[in-house]
Amino acid sequence: MQVRRSEAADLDPAFAAAVEELAGFVLGGGKRIRPTFAWWGWRAAGGAATGPEASAMLRAASALELLQACALVHDDLIDESDTRRGNPTVHRRFEQIHRAAGYRGDAGHFGSAAAVLLGDLALAWADDMVHEAGLSPEALRRAFHPWRAMRTEVLAGQYMDVLGQVRRDEEPRAALRICELKSASYTVRRPLEFGAQAAGAGPDALRALHRFGLDIGVAFQLRDDLLGVFGDPEVTGKPAGDDLREGKRTVLIAEAFAAAREQDDRHALDLLADVLGDADLDVARVERAREVLTRLGAVAAVEERITELTASAMHALESGDLAEPAATRLAELAVAVTDRIR
Amino acid sequence: MQVRRSEAADLDPAFAAAVEELAGFVLGGGKRIRPTFAWWGWRAAGGAATGPEASAMLRAASALELLQACALVHDDLIDESDTRRGNPTVHRRFEQIHRAAGYRGDAGHFGSAAAVLLGDLALAWADDMVHEAGLSPEALRRAFHPWRAMRTEVLAGQYMDVLGQVRRDEEPRAALRICELKSASYTVRRPLEFGAQAAGAGPDALRALHRFGLDIGVAFQLRDDLLGVFGDPEVTGKPAGDDLREGKRTVLIAEAFAAAREQDDRHALDLLADVLGDADLDVARVERAREVLTRLGAVAAVEERITELTASAMHALESGDLAEPAATRLAELAVAVTDRIR
Repeated sequence: MQVRRSEAADLDPAFAAAVEELAGFVLGGGKRIRPTFAWWGWRAAGGAATGPEASAMLRAASALELLQACALVHDDLIDESDTRRGNPTVHRRFEQIHRAAGYRGDAGHFGSAAAVLLGDLALAWADDMVHEAGLSPEALRRAFHPWRAMRTEVLAGQYMDVLGQVRRDEEPRAALRICELKSASYTVRRPLEFGAQAAGAGPDALRALHRFGLDIGVAFQLRDDLLGVFGDPEVTGKPAGDDLREGKRTVLIAEAFAAAREQDDRHALDLLADVLGDADLDVARVERAREVLTRLGAVAAVEERITELTASAMHALESGDLAEPAATRLAELAVAVTDRIR
Repeated sequence: MQVRRSEAADLDPAFAAAVEELAGFVLGGGKRIRPTFAWWGWRAAGGAATGPEASAMLRAASALELLQACALVHDDLIDESDTRRGNPTVHRRFEQIHRAAGYRGDAGHFGSAAAVLLGDLALAWADDMVHEAGLSPEALRRAFHPWRAMRTEVLAGQYMDVLGQVRRDEEPRAALRICELKSASYTVRRPLEFGAQAAGAGPDALRALHRFGLDIGVAFQLRDDLLGVFGDPEVTGKPAGDDLREGKRTVLIAEAFAAAREQDDRHALDLLADVLGDADLDVARVERAREVLTRLGAVAAVEERITELTASAMHALESGDLAEPAATRLAELAVAVTDRIR
């Protein structure tokens, strides 16, 4: 980041100031889930814990955080979100800068433009960082495949997500596919594979990590979907029932639609159609939606799937003959990211 | 593109349909200026004209077109432009798709979301393409520096451009800096360097191409600025005086402000402030603005600078001891991109 700051300052002081905002966003929080999985994928496949190769891997893994910065900045812009990690989102921040400086024209438009460009910058720099991390040419060649795949998959998942909202997709299968692309592949499977490939993992280890990563990744997203409706605002940092307000077509919602239709429950169908995407949804109606989701059995179905997926992931992990302490750390991480309270 | 299409289809048919729109945009037009400069940079430094290395270079050069697709898709979104290359811009196209399919929610918002994500995809794929082109590891290592620089520079230039509009920058120096970053470096200098570095150019050739690229790149943009105000809509494909309507802070405009202030010409200052950024500007007022720009000497100043820059570029080219036919082709290209009629 230091090098980038000085390069930006050489280009222009005002550009350097914008880069500072991006740096503040990247360094200002987040759970570092993707770099953590990349690191333990590396260690699971026998990658060194210290020394120059380990340092190179840590730098390469950090690129995942820059990629995530692009995804979040652009996602927040698309979702018109106001806050992220307890701070204003990047487009809102630049709106504030516009207003505070008394610039000409529409502040919202300036905020959007800045968010588009800074997200692009994070994406370009993520790529640079992977290639400049200091991995050996062979390690880089092997890790390139998951790197390539994860960027396309997350963008495909985000597009399908946006499309699902305007098409009002209600199929559990469609919701599950978005979940696989946008979360499971991007957040767990590909980061693990990225680290493991860099370390030269064999086919058995790769297979085990692949299975583990997809299962835990889906379970992680299913937990997130439950928290998006039932989570405590104090813990999630978002208003209660925010996913309902945004009209997200999650697996939870798709299961509820399927159950309501099977049970021919008109009341439930009407209520779901009514609350989803209603920006003015109040707490009382969030509570009613929660009752309906529970009564339809959608919550239990999702909880059951999380339990099954976690068990399957643990089984895959044990079958992989992975190096310690990575195998133990991955099992702990699996619990941490799918657990009821995060 | 064929591989990408089949990969996209494997991910999801609806994503594949969106990728088709992007492919249509990339393959549907454009002057291929950047790949052309990259190719002649390669040849100028002794790169092969045929064979596997030449094929690898052509693939790597094509990545510049994908990068440009990202820049255009996101720029059109930021500028709220309706057409590009005679077709609807990507965000407008997805707006149409939304309306035609009777999707739910705001069509404009869906169009913006799709444009953000498809621009990102083009940027990610551009990177993939450079690394998968088949360049030798040494060629790739050398070409990485200009590739890295050009992506940051174009984003810095775009940000400075957006900022210049809201700050109402009027300094010729600020306009020239944006011109250097957004056009000269990105369009000519870095593409030339990208090809030349891949071919293993020596310091003399690199110095000559660097000088030539910056001079021609700035001259190219200055010509574009003149066409943006004085160009024939039939030739430029844009409405007459479109740059005035968009309020672009070009070198031409900055020169006019400086001259008006020096001559204490209140009438000219008022007229310029009035027309710049006026979306409803009619042809009669465009004509009046043209008269003022000419009378102030701004047009003559820009024309003179184009002539000087082209002469300096030609001088640099001759000093470089570059391989033929590349040197001749580059001289022809320099005239073609800076000439009065394009």
